[in-house]
Amino acid sequence: MAHLPVLHEDRFFDPDPSIRRTARTLYDDVRDLPLVCPHGHVEPSLLAENTPFPEPTALIITPDHYIFRMLYSRGIALEALGIPAHDGATVERNPRRIWQLFADHYYLFRGTPSGVWLEHELAVVFGVREKLSSESAQRIYEEIAEKLRCAEFLPRALYDRFDIEVLATTDKATDPLEHHAAIRESDWDGTVLPTFRPDSLFRIASPAWRSELEALERATGSISRFIDFVRALEERRAFFKSMGATATDHAVVEPHTERLSLIEMDALLQRARRGEATLGDQRRFEAHMLMEMARMSVEDGLVMQLHAGSFRDHNERVFARFGTDKGADIPVATEYTRNLHALLNAYGNDPKLTLVLFTLDEGTYTRELAPLAGHYPALRLGPPWWFHDSLEGMTRFRQSTTETAGIYNTSGFNDDTRAFCSIPARHDLARRVDANYLAGLVARHVVDLADAREMARALAYDLVRETYKLKGASRRDAEKSNGGARTQTVSAGGHA
Amino acid sequence: MAHLPVLHEDRFFDPDPSIRRTARTLYDDVRDLPLVCPHGHVEPSLLAENTPFPEPTALIITPDHYIFRMLYSRGIALEALGIPAHDGATVERNPRRIWQLFADHYYLFRGTPSGVWLEHELAVVFGVREKLSSESAQRIYEEIAEKLRCAEFLPRALYDRFDIEVLATTDKATDPLEHHAAIRESDWDGTVLPTFRPDSLFRIASPAWRSELEALERATGSISRFIDFVRALEERRAFFKSMGATATDHAVVEPHTERLSLIEMDALLQRARRGEATLGDQRRFEAHMLMEMARMSVEDGLVMQLHAGSFRDHNERVFARFGTDKGADIPVATEYTRNLHALLNAYGNDPKLTLVLFTLDEGTYTRELAPLAGHYPALRLGPPWWFHDSLEGMTRFRQSTTETAGIYNTSGFNDDTRAFCSIPARHDLARRVDANYLAGLVARHVVDLADAREMARALAYDLVRETYKLKGASRRDAEKSNGGARTQTVSAGGHA
Amino acid sequence: MAHLPVLHEDRFFDPDPSIRRTARTLYDDVRDLPLVCPHGHVEPSLLAENTPFPEPTALIITPDHYIFRMLYSRGIALEALGIPAHDGATVERNPRRIWQLFADHYYLFRGTPSGVWLEHELAVVFGVREKLSSESAQRIYEEIAEKLRCAEFLPRALYDRFDIEVLATTDKATDPLEHHAAIRESDWDGTVLPTFRPDSLFRIASPAWRSELEALERATGSISRFIDFVRALEERRAFFKSMGATATDHAVVEPHTERLSLIEMDALLQRARRGEATLGDQRRFEAHMLMEMARMSVEDGLVMQLHAGSFRDHNERVFARFGTDKGADIPVATEYTRNLHALLNAYGNDPKLTLVLFTLDEGTYTRELAPLAGHYPALRLGPPWWFHDSLEGMTRFRQSTTETAGIYNTSGFNDDTRAFCSIPARHDLARRVDANYLAGLVARHVVDLADAREMARALAYDLVRETYKLKGASRRDAEKSNGGARTQTVSAGGHA
Repeated sequence: MAHLPVLHEDRFFDPDPSIRRTARTLYDDVRDLPLVCPHGHVEPSLLAENTPFPEPTALIITPDHYIFRMLYSRGIALEALGIPAHDGATVERNPRRIWQLFADHYYLFRGTPSGVWLEHELAVVFGVREKLSSESAQRIYEEIAEKLRCAEFLPRALYDRFDIEVLATTDKATDPLEHHAAIRESDWDGTVLPTFRPDSLFRIASPAWRSELEALERATGSISRFIDFVRALEERRAFFKSMGATATDHAVVEPHTERLSLIEMDALLQRARRGEATLGDQRRFEAHMLMEMARMSVEDGLVMQLHAGSFRDHNERVFARFGTDKGADIPVATEYTRNLHALLNAYGNDPKLTLVLFTLDEGTYTRELAPLAGHYPALRLGPPWWFHDSLEGMTRFRQSTTETAGIYNTSGFNDDTRAFCSIPARHDLARRVDANYLAGLVARHVVDLADAREMARALAYDLVRETYKLKGASRRDAEKSNGGARTQTVSAGGHA
Repeated sequence: MAHLPVLHEDRFFDPDPSIRRTARTLYDDVRDLPLVCPHGHVEPSLLAENTPFPEPTALIITPDHYIFRMLYSRGIALEALGIPAHDGATVERNPRRIWQLFADHYYLFRGTPSGVWLEHELAVVFGVREKLSSESAQRIYEEIAEKLRCAEFLPRALYDRFDIEVLATTDKATDPLEHHAAIRESDWDGTVLPTFRPDSLFRIASPAWRSELEALERATGSISRFIDFVRALEERRAFFKSMGATATDHAVVEPHTERLSLIEMDALLQRARRGEATLGDQRRFEAHMLMEMARMSVEDGLVMQLHAGSFRDHNERVFARFGTDKGADIPVATEYTRNLHALLNAYGNDPKLTLVLFTLDEGTYTRELAPLAGHYPALRLGPPWWFHDSLEGMTRFRQSTTETAGIYNTSGFNDDTRAFCSIPARHDLARRVDANYLAGLVARHVVDLADAREMARALAYDLVRETYKLKGASRRDAEKSNGGARTQTVSAGGHA
Repeated sequence: MAHLPVLHEDRFFDPDPSIRRTARTLYDDVRDLPLVCPHGHVEPSLLAENTPFPEPTALIITPDHYIFRMLYSRGIALEALGIPAHDGATVERNPRRIWQLFADHYYLFRGTPSGVWLEHELAVVFGVREKLSSESAQRIYEEIAEKLRCAEFLPRALYDRFDIEVLATTDKATDPLEHHAAIRESDWDGTVLPTFRPDSLFRIASPAWRSELEALERATGSISRFIDFVRALEERRAFFKSMGATATDHAVVEPHTERLSLIEMDALLQRARRGEATLGDQRRFEAHMLMEMARMSVEDGLVMQLHAGSFRDHNERVFARFGTDKGADIPVATEYTRNLHALLNAYGNDPKLTLVLFTLDEGTYTRELAPLAGHYPALRLGPPWWFHDSLEGMTRFRQSTTETAGIYNTSGFNDDTRAFCSIPARHDLARRVDANYLAGLVARHVVDLADAREMARALAYDLVRETYKLKGASRRDAEKSNGGARTQTVSAGGHA
């Protein structure tokens, strides 16, 4: 039985002693700051219902496409991993057998962020002291399963133990937000905020669009003309805001923006209602809707997030059997300079807008995104997204964007995860990588230690609260009448 | 006379002591593993005839476009370097004069992989102990020339000394493979395998296409319809397979794939036969032929290699006088996500297909290739190709692909070289760079040393044998009835 | 009052002791070499008139778009920074208030090249020993203001103190070069050379084109046909050359080149004269004019510089109020392999042409630029440009281009600056970064120390003089009859 060494105190730091020493200093400053989670995909029902997590396989493997896609890529059938099939195909039902298969192929995750997160999750969240292997698989399964039955491992208890300050979810524009309401009405004082995501209402060429529109009509009344559609969206945003939302989220393949006339938009809407909208129509509809969303953000103050460049469901066979989010979303080259021209010219100079950009095309960091963020007041760069939320990915992001945009035009970290138990691992990795990056600047005398300490705090905590307008959003803080050093408001510049 | 220091034991390793120490450990594990060479451009006649290499200039300079293109880029005429001219122009004939010119400009290779390989080749293969310079040029020429006349420097003797396990060549689809036959029939037990490369048969807009088709007809019988063409290719693949081939190789500018109907393909073929095919026709013909090649690979098990993104013969004046492969092939931006959609949807989920992708556009590593390889079972990433087969290039490849695809979706190293005597240098550089990359992961506590040792062996040996189906391909191994620890079959995961 | 530590002797070097030691050795070799400045935007009137610089704000903040764009990006109005408005809007006039605002937000420059340059400029050029902060702002303002009134801080005195060997400016094709003439006729022996930049004459779709043409006609006589236009340009180039120019400069969005017929060019010129030229017309006109410029360079020997890929004046509101060069120029993806095909095939093999390429798209370093420069004799890669003229940017450039093109196909450093007082800071940073890059090669045993020393000197001094044909251009050197070790002609290969 191979004992897992306790996670190394200096993990992810450069081995050079002068960098490592400074990295440790910077990390020690920020390691215990509360976790601010402005963007993610945790189900709000989890915290509303607060029932025990199921067994380890359903917690860790089956819902995590980072994990099962890697197994799939080496020839393990999704059926054998218990991924539910839409077409009624038989899939493995025995969670212990799936867990064993995962453990047998755990070596595939060597050097990957999933491997790093899993190691943290097993060791820190579940206290496992063995290395996962074919041999240890069933013992570890049992150990986790047992813990999941304890009160300390209920979702709210973990939220508290993780020291989460605010957790934002991502929710359809038509979502009634009943789980959010339940949490607010409960005696638990955690802060779970919704995020307004209207994408499916803008995909007018999709077969599902009609039912999306009907859901919107049920929520806001009949929609016949484009201005009804706009008003309905404004109404839903107001509702989300009343439920605590501070942000919206938008995903497009190409971040094209363009203002169309009301007449054109009305014609596109009518075409969509007749089920005749083409992909070209949708492209123009989305381009204009991004303009509308920016306009509404200027008016209602919701932070606008834009995620671009993912070719969704690239594998049609996997999509047909297993549906979306199965690890088959593949990035494509993405253009921002020309595509965002219309939106930035209309709203980019307005300090009332905050637009957070995300990319899957690292080539755009130095070429387009850092120069844009280093100019337009409305722009902030979101953290490295998805495939790039990793040691090397986050390092490349800082090395590529800081020199042109500085760190103060970036928005701090977000974990973007469905995997609730991986949240501390992800924040810890980000805090370590940023500390290490800053330590490199100190070691090369680019910034001094005093400045680096302010920068580390900004990246770990201040910038995300500032960007997402989350100062004071935590119910606990509000109740504590501005108490506690931890949540004291400090400007991102660090000039307290 | 400046003595060349013996090559440094720790060359190419990071100077940080903790990384260097681990890199040395990992490298020591793999340095003496046999060389597996699944993709390259050595002429099979070299090993069939086993006659002495000519003098140093004809061995090292004239055939190596990496070398003479660099000299050309600084104003040295190709004529002065003795490159044969098609148009009958006078070129330098005196090899010692060419060698002197090369030595006079040897400083141009500082910091380049060619410089690194040459240094290894001179020191290790030929035992030269001086630094090449204007002053030492003729002495070194003489020293090498003398050695080339010895039996120990005959091609087969070098193959044995280099400890090559398998060497694959690249051969036209219509090649009779007589040299391969001669090698198999000889009493020498080296293993030289052909690779099926049908590109020229798919370039229907090329003036040379007609004669390529005729060569195919001579080999397989008359071809009038597209289905004859397909059958002829199947027949040639079967012949290559019977001669030991385990792989095919395909080069395109854009890796576009698309299924056309038989009727369309037949029409394109007829247009080509009439000499009327356009570049647009060729693009569609190639797109469909890649589909056919994948289909045949599923059926006959040959590994499919796809190299994309090189604008060949960019310099028309150089092409007109000196022909192809003169250092004037320049990469272009390349797209994989959309281009491979058809092929991957048709065959990418089939574990019977192995498709190895190569790119000259490093921007695609994190954006497209690693996500694709981290999902589709059929995909493997080939090693960094051509300009990127270098210390920095290989390091960037690992840093960019491992986090998303892991190392087990990459195919191990191949040397891709025409320069037989540079083979050990290239494998040694790759083994050192991978050891150094893995040592960096250990030093930052991303993986532990035990895992890193398995990974180093996988990268140096196991993965390439697995990817290219070369386990048991070596004639020596077969003869040794599974003997020797060296060639023992170990799964790439290292779980023996 | 926080004392600024003296700038660290080892700043910007890798902290690893073996790299740092070698970097120091290499840097010590080159730190005191004269500054050769073949490309920049200093106003020649500055050195012709030699009047005192105005106060600190007008020297350091208002003219530097690197600085005020960063402040603007965090919501500080350009009006508050005293940027002159075209539309008569009121802007801040009090330089001390602007300076304070700048100091209050100085933290935004942490980790940016602007921050690094400013620190050097304050400490080394102005002898400031405090860290700039809200608290120290006015004291530092006063200290600099006082110095600017001294004779030692007159432009020519600074030029001498900076040890500038040659300073090239950038000048419109129609510029009478009167300031250059005044400098040549003065008793001051500094060397200030013009650079021929005809861009505005090629932008035939621009509303300003007509007046540009008229300026050309005033300088060279009436232009009715395209061949008059060509002759006028040849005449202006001859005039620039007579005034010491050794280079031309060209900026385009897309570096497209294509030879059009005289008839087509004439038709485009007539369309332009009638004010009817479209952007499509302009694209073709520019493509052909680049061919003409290359042809003229072959004939008159002027080095041709090509800067591509900047979408100018992306922010229309800022442009309308404040004009060009306000930090709103944003890069776009750029293609060189296909775009330069026509030009390189026509002139790229001619050693009489030197074409220096600049890019804002780092993705082209390994993919297109290094392979092109590693083949065509006429090509040299310019240093990392604009956003990439930084510690990380210059490091990436060397890591990406050296292995394919070597260092001898790059053109050495240029500062490309308007900010005269930042010139020493920029050269110092470049020399340090290159020394550090080379030290990394030595530490990993890729090159030996002797070679690295020659390479360091080539990058800091020899290559730029060779590329831009500046050997002997310095008036001082000419007068000193080849005196002084400093300016001794050494081949870039370092083989003295």
